[in-house]
Amino acid sequence: MMATAHPNHAWVSSEDVEGTNVYDTSGHKIGEVDHLMIDKLSGRVHYAVISFGGFLSLGHSHYPLPWDALSFDKKLDGFRTTVTEQQLRDSPDFSDDSWQSRDWERNIHDHYQVPPYWGV
Amino acid sequence: MMATAHPNHAWVSSEDVEGTNVYDTSGHKIGEVDHLMIDKLSGRVHYAVISFGGFLSLGHSHYPLPWDALSFDKKLDGFRTTVTEQQLRDSPDFSDDSWQSRDWERNIHDHYQVPPYWGV
Repeated sequence: MMATAHPNHAWVSSEDVEGTNVYDTSGHKIGEVDHLMIDKLSGRVHYAVISFGGFLSLGHSHYPLPWDALSFDKKLDGFRTTVTEQQLRDSPDFSDDSWQSRDWERNIHDHYQVPPYWGV
Repeated sequence: MMATAHPNHAWVSSEDVEGTNVYDTSGHKIGEVDHLMIDKLSGRVHYAVISFGGFLSLGHSHYPLPWDALSFDKKLDGFRTTVTEQQLRDSPDFSDDSWQSRDWERNIHDHYQVPPYWGV
């Protein structure tokens, strides 16, 4: 029924989320989702760890991005981001402990110019 | 640094979320997370599809629960739910199309007595 459909929703199973493509502002594929970091308490996805195969000269290949640095494009069936290669080069280091550090979270949201999800 | 830690967060990678245990109100394991359904646009987990191995007499084994029917228990490192075997038996049928139906979503939130995540 049209009346009850909600086509603005684009569902993905946690089983399938790995491998979703990521595109730059001009629509070129620059990478794909390696995995998401989910807050079990709130049920919110706060970070996507992206594998950037498209920026070949990068030292690392995996970079966590704040969720709000990505926007889902239904037509492309993938995410768009304004993040540049230079931003990735300059991005704050991270480790498994980073997720537990509000300082690191603040840095990475500042770096990508994304408002913190936890408010101010 | 204690000051910057946020121990209330319990992160899980989308790679690891499958298999997280689900416990009933008395702390017995009744199943585990098969997968989560994530809204790519909002970054919200709205449903967890649970495999109920603990309720052996059930006709089906996989049931979607509204995310808010689960609460994460850090001590157990798993989810707690008040959902009963009878509620599962009586739960609304679902198919792959269910995710696109606001009617179905309304039914299932009503059934498990969970307020709808989209407001009223």
